[in-house]
Amino acid sequence: MPYPERHLLICAYNRGPGHPRGSCGEKGSEKFVGVMKDLIRERGLRDRVLVSRTGCLKHCSLGVTAAVYPENVWYQQVTEGDLVEICDSHLAKGERVERLLMPEGAPWE
Amino acid sequence: MPYPERHLLICAYNRGPGHPRGSCGEKGSEKFVGVMKDLIRERGLRDRVLVSRTGCLKHCSLGVTAAVYPENVWYQQVTEGDLVEICDSHLAKGERVERLLMPEGAPWE
Repeated sequence: MPYPERHLLICAYNRGPGHPRGSCGEKGSEKFVGVMKDLIRERGLRDRVLVSRTGCLKHCSLGVTAAVYPENVWYQQVTEGDLVEICDSHLAKGERVERLLMPEGAPWE
Repeated sequence: MPYPERHLLICAYNRGPGHPRGSCGEKGSEKFVGVMKDLIRERGLRDRVLVSRTGCLKHCSLGVTAAVYPENVWYQQVTEGDLVEICDSHLAKGERVERLLMPEGAPWE
C-alpha cells in the first residue's frame, strides 16, 4: 500500500455564522484538523496517515463531515470528542466507527 | 461503488509569493478547482466524481499536487492545461495519466 495508507479529509468549509445551510467550519472543524494532526503525531502514525482540511465535502446539514480513503468511508456529525476514536480505531487499525457513519442515502447537498 | 466513484483532491495551499518552499496555490491551483468542477459538470460526471480543494498535500516542490481516490494515485506538476486530460482519462475512464504521475520516492516534504 503506497503512502498514505489512509487519508483523512476533514471539511473545513465555513459559510460564516448564521448561514441557513450551515457549514462544518462554523462547527469548529478547522480546529479538528490541528487536533487530529497532533493525535497522529502522538500515536506515531505520521508515516502511515495523512490528514487534510478540505473545501466543502457536502452533507452540510450533517456536518462536521469527514471521509477516509482509500476506504471511501464517510462520517457525519463528527465532534471534537470523536477524534480520538476515529484515530485509534479507523486510522490506526482500519476499524470504522459505526456510530458515526454517514447514513445510506444522506443527501449530497 | 459508493459515490463518489472518484474523488479528485487539488492542493490549494498558498504560502504566498516568494516563499522559499513554494506552494501549489502560488501556481494557480485555486483556479484549477473551479476549472475542473466546470469540466465535471460539462462532461456529465457530477453524479460520479467529486472535486475538492485541500490544504497542503505535501510534495510542495513538485506542485501543483493532486490525488485521486480511491485509487490513491498522485499527480505532480499539474498545470491548467493538464486538467482536461485528467478529467477525460482518469476521472471519466479510470485511465491514469502516466506522464503526470508522482515519481516513486518523491519526498513527502
